[in-house]
Amino acid sequence: MKLQLALDVYDTPQALSLLKGLVDVVDIVEIGTPMIIREGLRAVGAVKEAYPELTVLADAKIMDGGTFEAECAFEVGADIVTVLAVAEDATIRNVAVAADKFGRRVMADMIAVRDFEERAIILDGFGLDYLCVHTAFDVQATGSSPLDGLRRIKRVIHRSEVAVAGGVRLETLREIAAQQPAIVVVGMGITGQEDPRAVAEQMKMVLKEAKA
Amino acid sequence: MKLQLALDVYDTPQALSLLKGLVDVVDIVEIGTPMIIREGLRAVGAVKEAYPELTVLADAKIMDGGTFEAECAFEVGADIVTVLAVAEDATIRNVAVAADKFGRRVMADMIAVRDFEERAIILDGFGLDYLCVHTAFDVQATGSSPLDGLRRIKRVIHRSEVAVAGGVRLETLREIAAQQPAIVVVGMGITGQEDPRAVAEQMKMVLKEAKA
Repeated sequence: MKLQLALDVYDTPQALSLLKGLVDVVDIVEIGTPMIIREGLRAVGAVKEAYPELTVLADAKIMDGGTFEAECAFEVGADIVTVLAVAEDATIRNVAVAADKFGRRVMADMIAVRDFEERAIILDGFGLDYLCVHTAFDVQATGSSPLDGLRRIKRVIHRSEVAVAGGVRLETLREIAAQQPAIVVVGMGITGQEDPRAVAEQMKMVLKEAKA
Repeated sequence: MKLQLALDVYDTPQALSLLKGLVDVVDIVEIGTPMIIREGLRAVGAVKEAYPELTVLADAKIMDGGTFEAECAFEVGADIVTVLAVAEDATIRNVAVAADKFGRRVMADMIAVRDFEERAIILDGFGLDYLCVHTAFDVQATGSSPLDGLRRIKRVIHRSEVAVAGGVRLETLREIAAQQPAIVVVGMGITGQEDPRAVAEQMKMVLKEAKA
């Protein structure tokens, strides 16, 4: 299981400064949608330039213009790009074609998908690298968590690997890790803590133990 | 009926140069999602700074983090921000609250909505400024057009105004204008033409005639 650090509300200098103390602990660094909207894909390029060996995910949440937007992300150095699972099939397929062309990866974000299992089965058939079970930030306050969706998706998909995101914290990680997702995405659960590095290290330990 | 010019695949200098010859003809200028992904919201700020009197729409296609992302767009000067109609209700409501706080407007983009009328009725109940019927670029090649959706949405909504987008061209404008949307969004139908200004002027004429 891999630990993906989501950087959301920072600017590039803040993100690079945060990363300095975390980059050897986490497996994937995500440049979050709010960062991309504020700064553009140059934020992705800056992180990739600083850490060429690091796996960098551009959370572009592509909804249309799949070819153009995915290629823009891959051109600046993204290793993985996200497309919304609610997008048109044609958009998702175009993102997958762009990923193949660049030898990179696609994650479909299952956020706000209403026909959950049905959509997961269709996207699994597309052979995307990852499907990400994701509880929107805006509904986390109601107590929603991605755990139920994680259990449900694991029962129906066979080809894609599963990622999980949405308010994951150290306290909830063990239960999530028991479901064996390929990637666990954590944002404020690390960056919002007093000692981000210590928490990230503990999280890595939890993931390692759950694997055994 | 207003004419909204969508600027998608340009960088800011190209966009400003294009705008120079069109700004007095169009009613709203949209900084498209591909531009925002590539350059960030600074593209919106640059256009608003160059033309403070112009209505500028940030096509951020917000899917999560409604408060933060909408406020970022309004802070750089966007008059209208887009949220995806497929987003969680809580996200859409948070964008609407941010718009109220700033005295700006919200457009919900109906792209890829599967339960079309049902979703339109719910969003109409939220009192959003605009619902935009939108055929994804990635499916326009199959001959899909927003005309059918435009007719269907006009029958079920009462509070929000209707916008229409997705491959609109001079040849298809008259049929669309007959449905009296509040806003017609045109991208390549203007910017991809040999004489963008002449086409934009003809489009304004078509909209004016359809109103009569």
